[in-house]
Amino acid sequence: MRLRGRKGIREGLEQQEDLVVLNPEQYKGKWQERFGNDLPIHVEFGMGKGRFVSQMSVKHPNVNYIGFDMYDELVRRASEKTRMAWEEAERGEPTTIQLARANIEKIEEVFAPGEIERIYLNFSDPWPKKKHGRRRLTHPRFLDMYCKLLNTRGEIHFKTDSETLFEFSLNSFADYGLQMTNISLNLHRDGINEEHVMTEYEAKFMGKGMNIHRCEVLIGEDVLREYQAMRLDKY
Amino acid sequence: MRLRGRKGIREGLEQQEDLVVLNPEQYKGKWQERFGNDLPIHVEFGMGKGRFVSQMSVKHPNVNYIGFDMYDELVRRASEKTRMAWEEAERGEPTTIQLARANIEKIEEVFAPGEIERIYLNFSDPWPKKKHGRRRLTHPRFLDMYCKLLNTRGEIHFKTDSETLFEFSLNSFADYGLQMTNISLNLHRDGINEEHVMTEYEAKFMGKGMNIHRCEVLIGEDVLREYQAMRLDKY
Repeated sequence: MRLRGRKGIREGLEQQEDLVVLNPEQYKGKWQERFGNDLPIHVEFGMGKGRFVSQMSVKHPNVNYIGFDMYDELVRRASEKTRMAWEEAERGEPTTIQLARANIEKIEEVFAPGEIERIYLNFSDPWPKKKHGRRRLTHPRFLDMYCKLLNTRGEIHFKTDSETLFEFSLNSFADYGLQMTNISLNLHRDGINEEHVMTEYEAKFMGKGMNIHRCEVLIGEDVLREYQAMRLDKY
Repeated sequence: MRLRGRKGIREGLEQQEDLVVLNPEQYKGKWQERFGNDLPIHVEFGMGKGRFVSQMSVKHPNVNYIGFDMYDELVRRASEKTRMAWEEAERGEPTTIQLARANIEKIEEVFAPGEIERIYLNFSDPWPKKKHGRRRLTHPRFLDMYCKLLNTRGEIHFKTDSETLFEFSLNSFADYGLQMTNISLNLHRDGINEEHVMTEYEAKFMGKGMNIHRCEVLIGEDVLREYQAMRLDKY
């Protein structure tokens, strides 16, 4: 989604210091301090208009959420959506969610090692041309970064409608040596789980009958240990 | 595919002692001896009418192939197909291929540990009902057996048109802790590779525009070591 700056957008964001973070580098290693609590931090890289991260923040009060995107206009829309979601849920002003403007290329300047517990990648740009493969958010060079930033309960939750991006990502996770689990090639095969929070894209693609692919990747040593103990129980 | 015995089929098979093995248990630990060479042994579990295994045996003279199925009628058809394929290729009587009747449930009675190098699972029965999950040839209880029977270069090559079987199998491989590689969600996306040998099902499903899913699983310590050394080179 390509968006050009519009007069006034930047100012509007600057006035939302409680919710919007335009220079997230300043909080590296200090996010928990900024939230003023010790809840785990879940991030969404590429939040788009923010439906997923805002709804998650309303549903899960015991998690701090940070939604990231690169464009002022998307951060603005996400801020509107977030305030509306919290208001509708009668939870007042948003506290356990932040919306940040950043390029995921530079995410190591935004978080200290082990500072986050979960990364959501929802409908990331598939970058279909082979020469752009390095830009895909599941490329091994991004996995390098994610593995550093995630803590001992760290997981990546990945969801996409793109068959080619999902295929690339399964191979990338496997080649990187990561433990995948709960792989789904058609998330909504058995109908929608009411607990499931959909993104804008997801709702749109669902309507067109397209398959949503999903998987979880276990990174942290504690989640891996728990998984090891029960990985074959379901068979 | 359910097939009832037909008068005369059994006798026909009994007369093909050079190609057909009705009681494969008798060769446990002695397959190399039966082939009379020291080429690696690749097996197909569920060969159906035998198109894949017979064509592979023609194309790859440095591999011994054994195709397995449970039903006399399928073994008979595969034997016809094999003789025809070898004749067309002007390779004379089939030597590096055997067709065996066996239930994969009892495959440990047919092979000694480390006796085979590759297992092909092509379009295995998806057993779509959850209560039949244990019958799927990629269920962990089968993986237990495969891991015992494969040698240090051992691999499983798995191909299916069934989205649900593929999803089940990816999870089964991942939960079992196996190394997957070359995962494809649409094998023929970029057109057919001429080297690629199709099964009967594959040719049929291709014609209908259905996706073929495929992946390789690395089991043996030697192939795993080689893979480790180059797993990220392609990125």
